[in-house]
Amino acid sequence: MKPTLGILGGMGPLATVDFMRKVIDLTPATGDQDHIPMVVASIPQVPDRTAAILGSGESPLPAMLEGIRLLNQAAVDAVAIPCNTAHYWFDDLARESRAPILHIVDAACSVLKERTRGVGTVGFLGTTGMVKSGIYQRRIEAGGYACLTPDEADQEKLVMGGIYKIKAGDLAAARDLLEQAADGLRARGAGAIVLGCTEIPIVIADGGDVIDATLALAGACVRRFAAADAAA
Amino acid sequence: MKPTLGILGGMGPLATVDFMRKVIDLTPATGDQDHIPMVVASIPQVPDRTAAILGSGESPLPAMLEGIRLLNQAAVDAVAIPCNTAHYWFDDLARESRAPILHIVDAACSVLKERTRGVGTVGFLGTTGMVKSGIYQRRIEAGGYACLTPDEADQEKLVMGGIYKIKAGDLAAARDLLEQAADGLRARGAGAIVLGCTEIPIVIADGGDVIDATLALAGACVRRFAAADAAA
Repeated sequence: MKPTLGILGGMGPLATVDFMRKVIDLTPATGDQDHIPMVVASIPQVPDRTAAILGSGESPLPAMLEGIRLLNQAAVDAVAIPCNTAHYWFDDLARESRAPILHIVDAACSVLKERTRGVGTVGFLGTTGMVKSGIYQRRIEAGGYACLTPDEADQEKLVMGGIYKIKAGDLAAARDLLEQAADGLRARGAGAIVLGCTEIPIVIADGGDVIDATLALAGACVRRFAAADAAA
Repeated sequence: MKPTLGILGGMGPLATVDFMRKVIDLTPATGDQDHIPMVVASIPQVPDRTAAILGSGESPLPAMLEGIRLLNQAAVDAVAIPCNTAHYWFDDLARESRAPILHIVDAACSVLKERTRGVGTVGFLGTTGMVKSGIYQRRIEAGGYACLTPDEADQEKLVMGGIYKIKAGDLAAARDLLEQAADGLRARGAGAIVLGCTEIPIVIADGGDVIDATLALAGACVRRFAAADAAA
Protein backbone atom coordinates (compact mmCIF):
# COMPACT_ATOMS: atom_id res chain seq x y z
CA MET A 1 0.00 0.00 0.00
CA LYS A 2 1.26 3.45 -0.91
CA PRO A 3 1.53 5.99 1.94
CA THR A 4 -1.83 7.65 2.58
CA LEU A 5 -2.58 11.36 2.88
CA GLY A 6 -5.06 12.30 5.60
CA ILE A 7 -7.15 15.41 5.03
CA LEU A 8 -8.94 17.25 7.82
CA GLY A 9 -11.55 19.08 5.79
CA GLY A 10 -14.99 20.56 5.56
CA MET A 11 -13.77 24.07 6.47
CA GLY A 12 -15.42 24.66 4.07
CA PRO A 13 -16.55 21.67 2.01
CA LEU A 14 -15.82 23.26 -1.40
CA ALA A 15 -12.31 24.22 -0.26
CA THR A 16 -11.68 20.56 0.60
CA VAL A 17 -12.77 19.44 -2.86
CA ASP A 18 -10.63 22.19 -4.43
CA PHE A 19 -7.60 20.97 -2.46
CA MET A 20 -8.16 17.31 -3.42
CA ARG A 21 -8.49 18.31 -7.07
CA LYS A 22 -5.20 20.24 -6.88
CA VAL A 23 -3.38 17.25 -5.33
CA ILE A 24 -4.72 15.03 -8.13
CA ASP A 25 -3.83 17.55 -10.87
CA LEU A 26 -0.27 17.99 -9.55
CA THR A 27 0.38 14.23 -9.26
CA PRO A 28 2.23 12.79 -12.26
CA ALA A 29 -0.04 9.89 -13.25
CA THR A 30 -0.84 7.70 -16.22
CA GLY A 31 -3.71 5.92 -14.42
CA ASP A 32 -5.56 5.52 -11.12
CA GLN A 33 -2.83 3.49 -9.41
CA ASP A 34 -0.29 6.35 -9.58
CA HIS A 35 -2.45 8.63 -7.42
CA ILE A 36 -1.99 9.27 -3.69
CA PRO A 37 -4.49 7.38 -1.51
CA MET A 38 -6.42 9.77 0.71
CA VAL A 39 -8.59 9.47 3.78
CA VAL A 40 -10.72 12.56 4.24
CA ALA A 41 -12.67 13.66 7.31
CA SER A 42 -14.83 16.49 5.97
CA ILE A 43 -16.63 17.98 8.98
CA PRO A 44 -18.43 21.20 8.03
CA GLN A 45 -19.89 21.36 11.57
CA VAL A 46 -16.54 22.48 13.04
CA PRO A 47 -17.44 25.79 14.74
CA ASP A 48 -16.49 28.97 12.84
CA ARG A 49 -12.76 29.59 13.26
CA THR A 50 -12.83 33.36 12.88
CA ALA A 51 -15.63 33.79 15.42
CA ALA A 52 -13.60 31.78 17.94
CA ILE A 53 -10.40 33.79 17.38
CA LEU A 54 -12.37 37.02 17.79
CA GLY A 55 -13.79 35.67 21.05
CA SER A 56 -17.42 35.54 19.91
CA GLY A 57 -17.82 31.80 19.25
CA GLU A 58 -17.05 28.39 20.70
CA SER A 59 -13.68 26.75 20.09
CA PRO A 60 -13.36 24.58 16.98
CA LEU A 61 -10.53 22.60 18.61
CA PRO A 62 -12.55 19.64 20.04
CA ALA A 63 -14.23 18.97 16.67
CA MET A 64 -10.92 19.27 14.82
CA LEU A 65 -9.24 16.90 17.30
CA GLU A 66 -12.00 14.36 16.65
CA GLY A 67 -11.13 14.53 12.95
CA ILE A 68 -7.41 14.19 13.69
CA ARG A 69 -8.12 11.07 15.77
CA LEU A 70 -10.21 9.56 12.96
CA LEU A 71 -7.37 10.12 10.47
CA ASN A 72 -4.79 8.61 12.80
CA GLN A 73 -7.02 5.59 13.43
CA ALA A 74 -7.06 5.13 9.66
CA ALA A 75 -3.24 5.04 9.82
CA VAL A 76 -2.57 7.98 7.49
CA ASP A 77 1.10 8.90 6.97
CA ALA A 78 0.73 12.69 6.96
CA VAL A 79 -2.12 15.16 7.40
CA ALA A 80 -3.08 18.27 5.45
CA ILE A 81 -5.68 20.78 6.63
CA PRO A 82 -7.07 22.84 3.75
CA CYS A 83 -8.18 25.71 6.00
CA ASN A 84 -5.69 28.47 6.78
CA THR A 85 -7.54 29.77 9.82
CA ALA A 86 -7.53 26.28 11.39
CA HIS A 87 -3.75 26.65 11.59
CA TYR A 88 -4.27 29.04 14.50
CA TRP A 89 -4.62 25.77 16.48
CA PHE A 90 -1.75 24.02 14.64
CA ASP A 91 0.35 23.24 17.74
CA ASP A 92 -2.63 21.77 19.61
CA LEU A 93 -3.50 19.57 16.62
CA ALA A 94 0.10 18.51 15.91
CA ARG A 95 0.56 17.47 19.55
CA GLU A 96 -2.38 15.03 19.29
CA SER A 97 -1.45 13.59 15.88
CA ARG A 98 0.91 10.65 15.42
CA ALA A 99 1.08 11.52 11.70
CA PRO A 100 2.92 14.79 10.99
CA ILE A 101 0.77 17.72 9.85
CA LEU A 102 2.01 19.77 6.89
CA HIS A 103 1.75 23.53 7.62
CA ILE A 104 -0.09 25.56 4.98
CA VAL A 105 1.67 28.81 5.92
CA ASP A 106 5.10 27.17 5.47
CA ALA A 107 3.98 25.92 2.04
CA ALA A 108 2.63 29.32 0.96
CA CYS A 109 5.72 31.21 2.19
CA SER A 110 8.03 28.82 0.29
CA VAL A 111 6.17 29.52 -2.93
CA LEU A 112 6.16 33.26 -2.16
CA LYS A 113 9.96 33.16 -1.86
CA GLU A 114 10.38 31.22 -5.14
CA ARG A 115 8.02 33.36 -7.16
CA THR A 116 8.59 36.98 -6.08
CA ARG A 117 12.08 38.16 -6.91
CA GLY A 118 12.22 41.95 -6.73
CA VAL A 119 8.88 42.29 -4.92
CA GLY A 120 9.08 44.35 -1.73
CA THR A 121 5.45 44.50 -0.62
CA VAL A 122 3.05 41.57 -0.31
CA GLY A 123 -0.73 41.83 0.15
CA PHE A 124 -2.51 39.26 2.30
CA LEU A 125 -6.13 38.17 1.89
CA GLY A 126 -7.54 35.89 4.56
CA THR A 127 -10.22 35.69 7.21
CA THR A 128 -10.42 38.39 9.88
CA GLY A 129 -9.43 35.71 12.40
CA MET A 130 -6.26 34.96 10.45
CA VAL A 131 -5.48 38.67 9.96
CA LYS A 132 -5.90 39.39 13.71
CA SER A 133 -3.74 36.40 14.63
CA GLY A 134 -0.85 37.91 12.64
CA ILE A 135 0.42 34.42 11.72
CA TYR A 136 0.84 35.17 8.01
CA GLN A 137 2.06 38.76 8.46
CA ARG A 138 4.85 37.68 10.84
CA ARG A 139 5.98 34.95 8.44
CA ILE A 140 5.82 37.23 5.39
CA GLU A 141 7.73 40.02 7.19
CA ALA A 142 10.32 37.51 8.41
CA GLY A 143 10.96 36.81 4.70
CA GLY A 144 12.00 40.44 4.24
CA TYR A 145 8.75 41.78 2.73
CA ALA A 146 6.40 44.49 3.91
CA CYS A 147 2.91 43.03 4.39
CA LEU A 148 -0.35 44.84 3.65
CA THR A 149 -3.86 43.81 4.66
CA PRO A 150 -7.16 45.50 3.70
CA ASP A 151 -8.42 48.25 6.00
CA GLU A 152 -11.13 47.23 8.47
CA ALA A 153 -14.07 48.23 6.27
CA ASP A 154 -12.75 46.39 3.18
CA GLN A 155 -11.78 43.37 5.32
CA GLU A 156 -15.34 43.06 6.58
CA LYS A 157 -17.30 43.96 3.45
CA LEU A 158 -15.10 42.63 0.65
CA VAL A 159 -13.06 39.80 2.18
CA MET A 160 -15.39 38.28 4.79
CA GLY A 161 -18.38 39.16 2.59
CA GLY A 162 -16.78 37.25 -0.29
CA ILE A 163 -15.74 34.26 1.84
CA TYR A 164 -19.22 33.76 3.32
CA LYS A 165 -20.74 34.08 -0.18
CA ILE A 166 -18.55 31.15 -1.29
CA LYS A 167 -19.68 29.10 1.71
CA ALA A 168 -23.28 29.83 0.65
CA GLY A 169 -22.53 28.85 -2.98
CA ASP A 170 -22.78 32.31 -4.61
CA LEU A 171 -19.47 32.19 -6.48
CA ALA A 172 -20.00 35.03 -8.97
CA ALA A 173 -20.79 37.62 -6.27
CA ALA A 174 -17.87 36.30 -4.20
CA ARG A 175 -15.39 36.69 -7.07
CA ASP A 176 -16.41 40.29 -7.61
CA LEU A 177 -15.93 41.25 -3.93
CA LEU A 178 -12.61 39.44 -3.55
CA GLU A 179 -11.17 40.85 -6.81
CA GLN A 180 -12.00 44.34 -5.47
CA ALA A 181 -10.10 43.52 -2.26
CA ALA A 182 -7.06 42.30 -4.25
CA ASP A 183 -7.13 45.41 -6.46
CA GLY A 184 -7.24 47.61 -3.35
CA LEU A 185 -3.99 45.99 -2.12
CA ARG A 186 -2.38 46.36 -5.56
CA ALA A 187 -3.31 50.06 -5.62
CA ARG A 188 -1.51 50.44 -2.27
CA GLY A 189 1.68 48.92 -3.76
CA ALA A 190 1.42 45.15 -3.27
CA GLY A 191 3.53 43.36 -5.90
CA ALA A 192 2.16 39.95 -4.89
CA ILE A 193 -1.11 38.80 -3.32
CA VAL A 194 -1.22 35.76 -1.02
CA LEU A 195 -4.61 34.02 -0.91
CA GLY A 196 -4.46 32.78 2.67
CA CYS A 197 -8.00 31.45 3.02
CA THR A 198 -8.87 28.24 1.17
CA GLU A 199 -12.25 29.61 0.08
CA ILE A 200 -10.70 32.42 -1.99
CA PRO A 201 -8.88 30.27 -4.62
CA ILE A 202 -12.24 28.71 -5.50
CA VAL A 203 -12.95 31.99 -7.32
CA ILE A 204 -9.47 33.53 -7.93
CA ALA A 205 -6.81 31.43 -9.67
CA ASP A 206 -3.12 31.14 -8.82
CA GLY A 207 -0.73 32.74 -11.33
CA GLY A 208 0.78 36.11 -12.20
CA ASP A 209 1.04 38.05 -8.94
CA VAL A 210 -1.42 35.73 -7.14
CA ILE A 211 -0.15 32.98 -4.82
CA ASP A 212 -2.73 30.38 -3.77
CA ALA A 213 -1.91 28.77 -0.40
CA THR A 214 -4.12 25.76 -1.22
CA LEU A 215 -2.09 25.03 -4.36
CA ALA A 216 1.12 25.52 -2.36
CA LEU A 217 -0.05 22.96 0.24
CA ALA A 218 -1.08 20.53 -2.51
CA GLY A 219 2.37 20.90 -4.06
CA ALA A 220 4.06 20.22 -0.70
CA CYS A 221 1.92 17.06 -0.27
CA VAL A 222 2.70 15.76 -3.76
CA ARG A 223 6.45 16.32 -3.26
CA ARG A 224 6.37 14.58 0.12
CA PHE A 225 4.43 11.56 -1.13
CA ALA A 226 6.49 11.29 -4.33
CA ALA A 227 9.62 11.18 -2.15
CA ALA A 228 8.03 8.54 0.12
CA ASP A 229 7.22 6.51 -3.00
CA ALA A 230 10.76 6.73 -4.33
CA ALA A 231 12.09 5.58 -0.93
CA ALA A 232 9.67 2.62 -0.74
CA MET B 1 -23.49 15.50 15.08
CA LYS B 2 -25.32 15.31 11.76
CA PRO B 3 -25.42 11.87 10.08
CA THR B 4 -22.24 11.26 8.09
CA LEU B 5 -21.93 10.08 4.48
CA GLY B 6 -19.19 7.53 3.83
CA ILE B 7 -17.63 7.52 0.38
CA LEU B 8 -15.65 4.59 -0.99
CA GLY B 9 -13.68 6.40 -3.67
CA GLY B 10 -10.54 6.66 -5.73
CA MET B 11 -12.04 4.72 -8.64
CA GLY B 12 -10.87 7.05 -10.09
CA PRO B 13 -9.74 9.94 -7.92
CA LEU B 14 -11.23 12.69 -10.13
CA ALA B 15 -14.59 10.89 -10.19
CA THR B 16 -14.59 10.97 -6.37
CA VAL B 17 -13.97 14.71 -6.31
CA ASP B 18 -16.67 15.19 -8.99
CA PHE B 19 -19.14 13.25 -6.82
CA MET B 20 -18.29 15.22 -3.65
CA ARG B 21 -18.70 18.48 -5.56
CA LYS B 22 -22.13 17.36 -6.80
CA VAL B 23 -23.28 16.45 -3.27
CA ILE B 24 -22.14 19.89 -2.05
CA ASP B 25 -23.78 21.71 -4.97
CA LEU B 26 -27.10 19.87 -4.48
CA THR B 27 -27.23 20.53 -0.70
CA PRO B 28 -29.35 23.54 0.25
CA ALA B 29 -26.92 25.56 2.40
CA THR B 30 -26.36 29.07 3.63
CA GLY B 31 -23.03 28.21 5.29
CA ASP B 32 -20.60 25.39 6.16
CA GLN B 33 -22.73 23.96 8.98
CA ASP B 34 -25.60 23.02 6.63
CA HIS B 35 -23.43 20.63 4.61
CA ILE B 36 -23.34 16.86 4.99
CA PRO B 37 -20.29 15.58 6.92
CA MET B 38 -18.33 13.06 4.86
CA VAL B 39 -15.67 10.49 5.50
CA VAL B 40 -13.91 9.51 2.31
CA ALA B 41 -11.63 6.53 1.69
CA SER B 42 -10.11 7.33 -1.69
CA ILE B 43 -8.04 4.31 -2.69
CA PRO B 44 -6.84 4.58 -6.29
CA GLN B 45 -4.85 1.35 -5.84
CA VAL B 46 -8.02 -0.79 -5.99
CA PRO B 47 -7.28 -3.19 -8.88
CA ASP B 48 -8.92 -2.35 -12.23
CA ARG B 49 -12.59 -3.38 -12.10
CA THR B 50 -13.06 -4.01 -15.81
CA ALA B 51 -9.94 -6.20 -16.06
CA ALA B 52 -11.25 -8.33 -13.17
CA ILE B 53 -14.74 -8.74 -14.70
CA LEU B 54 -13.15 -9.73 -18.02
CA GLY B 55 -11.03 -12.32 -16.17
CA SER B 56 -7.67 -10.71 -16.92
CA GLY B 57 -6.91 -9.03 -13.59
CA GLU B 58 -6.99 -9.61 -9.84
CA SER B 59 -10.17 -9.02 -7.87
CA PRO B 60 -10.72 -5.50 -6.48
CA LEU B 61 -12.96 -6.93 -3.74
CA PRO B 62 -10.38 -7.24 -0.90
CA ALA B 63 -9.20 -3.62 -1.35
CA MET B 64 -12.79 -2.38 -1.54
CA LEU B 65 -13.72 -4.33 1.61
CA GLU B 66 -10.81 -2.67 3.41
CA GLY B 67 -12.30 0.71 2.48
CA ILE B 68 -15.77 -0.38 3.62
CA ARG B 69 -14.33 -1.44 6.99
CA LEU B 70 -12.56 1.91 7.40
CA LEU B 71 -15.82 3.77 6.72
CA ASN B 72 -17.77 1.62 9.17
CA GLN B 73 -15.08 2.11 11.85
CA ALA B 74 -15.62 5.84 11.34
CA ALA B 75 -19.33 5.22 12.11
CA VAL B 76 -20.75 6.56 8.85
CA ASP B 77 -24.53 6.36 8.45
CA ALA B 78 -24.66 5.40 4.76
CA VAL B 79 -22.12 4.67 2.04
CA ALA B 80 -21.90 5.84 -1.57
CA ILE B 81 -19.49 4.37 -4.11
CA PRO B 82 -18.87 6.76 -7.01
CA CYS B 83 -17.77 3.99 -9.39
CA ASN B 84 -20.43 2.20 -11.41
CA THR B 85 -18.27 -0.81 -12.23
CA ALA B 86 -17.56 -1.39 -8.52
CA HIS B 87 -21.30 -2.16 -8.19
CA TYR B 88 -20.60 -5.52 -9.86
CA TRP B 89 -19.51 -6.50 -6.29
CA PHE B 90 -22.39 -4.63 -4.59
CA ASP B 91 -23.83 -7.67 -2.75
CA ASP B 92 -20.42 -8.66 -1.37
CA LEU B 93 -19.79 -5.11 -0.16
CA ALA B 94 -23.29 -4.62 1.28
CA ARG B 95 -23.00 -7.88 3.25
CA GLU B 96 -19.86 -6.61 5.03
CA SER B 97 -21.16 -3.09 5.73
CA ARG B 98 -23.16 -2.17 8.80
CA ALA B 99 -24.06 1.12 7.10
CA PRO B 100 -26.39 0.71 4.11
CA ILE B 101 -24.86 1.29 0.67
CA LEU B 102 -26.83 3.42 -1.80
CA HIS B 103 -26.92 1.74 -5.24
CA ILE B 104 -25.82 3.97 -8.14
CA VAL B 105 -27.80 1.98 -10.73
CA ASP B 106 -31.02 2.41 -8.70
CA ALA B 107 -30.35 6.15 -8.53
CA ALA B 108 -29.65 6.46 -12.27
CA CYS B 109 -32.71 4.39 -13.24
CA SER B 110 -34.98 6.54 -11.04
CA VAL B 111 -33.79 9.67 -12.81
CA LEU B 112 -34.14 7.94 -16.19
CA LYS B 113 -37.77 7.19 -15.40
CA GLU B 114 -38.49 10.79 -14.29
CA ARG B 115 -36.77 12.47 -17.20
CA THR B 116 -37.62 10.40 -20.30
CA ARG B 117 -41.33 10.44 -21.03
CA GLY B 118 -41.92 9.23 -24.58
CA VAL B 119 -38.40 7.84 -25.04
CA GLY B 120 -38.33 4.19 -26.20
CA THR B 121 -34.62 3.58 -26.67
CA VAL B 122 -31.83 4.36 -24.20
CA GLY B 123 -28.12 4.32 -24.98
CA PHE B 124 -25.67 3.19 -22.30
CA LEU B 125 -22.06 4.35 -21.95
CA GLY B 126 -19.95 2.57 -19.36
CA THR B 127 -16.86 0.44 -18.97
CA THR B 128 -16.56 -2.80 -20.92
CA GLY B 129 -16.76 -4.62 -17.59
CA MET B 130 -20.07 -2.95 -16.82
CA VAL B 131 -21.40 -3.59 -20.36
CA LYS B 132 -20.45 -7.30 -20.20
CA SER B 133 -22.04 -7.65 -16.75
CA GLY B 134 -25.38 -6.53 -18.20
CA ILE B 135 -26.33 -4.88 -14.88
CA TYR B 136 -27.47 -1.59 -16.42
CA GLN B 137 -29.03 -3.13 -19.55
CA ARG B 138 -31.23 -5.49 -17.48
CA ARG B 139 -32.39 -2.62 -15.25
CA ILE B 140 -33.02 -0.29 -18.20
CA GLU B 141 -34.95 -2.98 -20.09
CA ALA B 142 -36.96 -3.81 -16.97
CA GLY B 143 -38.11 -0.16 -17.11
CA GLY B 144 -39.67 -0.84 -20.52
CA TYR B 145 -36.94 0.66 -22.71
CA ALA B 146 -34.79 -0.90 -25.40
CA CYS B 147 -31.11 -0.51 -24.48
CA LEU B 148 -28.28 0.14 -26.93
CA THR B 149 -24.54 -0.11 -26.28
CA PRO B 150 -21.69 0.78 -28.68
CA ASP B 151 -20.40 -1.99 -30.98
CA GLU B 152 -17.22 -3.71 -29.84
CA ALA B 153 -14.85 -1.50 -31.83
CA ASP B 154 -16.41 1.77 -30.59
CA GLN B 155 -16.62 0.41 -27.04
CA GLU B 156 -12.88 -0.25 -27.02
CA LYS B 157 -11.62 2.74 -28.99
CA LEU B 158 -14.06 5.50 -28.01
CA VAL B 159 -15.44 4.52 -24.59
CA MET B 160 -12.52 2.74 -22.89
CA GLY B 161 -10.09 4.97 -24.79
CA GLY B 162 -11.89 8.02 -23.39
CA ILE B 163 -12.16 6.66 -19.85
CA TYR B 164 -8.46 5.83 -19.58
CA LYS B 165 -7.58 9.28 -20.98
CA ILE B 166 -9.55 10.84 -18.09
CA LYS B 167 -7.68 8.67 -15.59
CA ALA B 168 -4.43 9.95 -17.14
CA GLY B 169 -5.65 13.58 -16.96
CA ASP B 170 -6.11 14.25 -20.71
CA LEU B 171 -9.65 15.64 -20.51
CA ALA B 172 -9.90 17.34 -23.92
CA ALA B 173 -9.03 14.18 -25.86
CA ALA B 174 -11.37 12.16 -23.63
CA ARG B 175 -14.31 14.48 -24.26
CA ASP B 176 -13.87 14.17 -28.02
CA LEU B 177 -13.84 10.34 -27.95
CA LEU B 178 -16.81 10.04 -25.57
CA GLU B 179 -18.93 12.57 -27.48
CA GLN B 180 -18.34 10.48 -30.61
CA ALA B 181 -19.56 7.39 -28.75
CA ALA B 182 -22.71 9.23 -27.56
CA ASP B 183 -23.39 10.53 -31.07
CA GLY B 184 -23.07 6.98 -32.44
CA LEU B 185 -25.83 5.81 -30.04
CA ARG B 186 -28.02 8.80 -30.97
CA ALA B 187 -27.59 7.99 -34.68
CA ARG B 188 -28.85 4.47 -33.93
CA GLY B 189 -32.01 5.89 -32.31
CA ALA B 190 -31.20 6.45 -28.63
CA GLY B 191 -33.48 9.16 -27.18
CA ALA B 192 -31.53 9.28 -23.93
CA ILE B 193 -27.91 8.51 -22.99
CA VAL B 194 -27.04 7.12 -19.54
CA LEU B 195 -23.48 7.93 -18.42
CA GLY B 196 -22.87 4.81 -16.34
CA CYS B 197 -19.19 5.28 -15.58
CA THR B 198 -18.22 8.01 -13.10
CA GLU B 199 -15.28 9.12 -15.24
CA ILE B 200 -17.50 10.16 -18.16
CA PRO B 201 -19.44 13.01 -16.44
CA ILE B 202 -16.10 14.70 -15.73
CA VAL B 203 -16.14 15.65 -19.44
CA ILE B 204 -19.84 15.38 -20.47
CA ALA B 205 -22.47 17.27 -18.44
CA ASP B 206 -25.90 16.05 -17.35
CA GLY B 207 -28.85 17.73 -19.08
CA GLY B 208 -30.92 17.47 -22.26
CA ASP B 209 -30.87 13.79 -23.28
CA VAL B 210 -27.87 13.01 -21.04
CA ILE B 211 -28.36 11.35 -17.63
CA ASP B 212 -25.33 11.37 -15.32
CA ALA B 213 -25.36 8.49 -12.83
CA THR B 214 -22.95 10.35 -10.53
CA LEU B 215 -25.37 13.28 -10.24
CA ALA B 216 -28.23 10.83 -9.70
CA LEU B 217 -26.33 9.18 -6.80
CA ALA B 218 -25.47 12.59 -5.33
CA GLY B 219 -29.17 13.52 -5.48
CA ALA B 220 -30.15 10.28 -3.74
CA CYS B 221 -27.61 10.98 -0.96
CA VAL B 222 -28.77 14.57 -0.44
CA ARG B 223 -32.43 13.45 -0.23
CA ARG B 224 -31.55 10.69 2.23
CA PHE B 225 -29.48 12.95 4.48
CA ALA B 226 -31.97 15.81 4.32
CA ALA B 227 -34.66 13.36 5.49
CA ALA B 228 -32.38 12.11 8.31
CA ASP B 229 -31.84 15.74 9.33
CA ALA B 230 -35.55 16.46 9.42
CA ALA B 231 -36.10 13.35 11.56
CA ALA B 232 -33.31 14.30 14.01
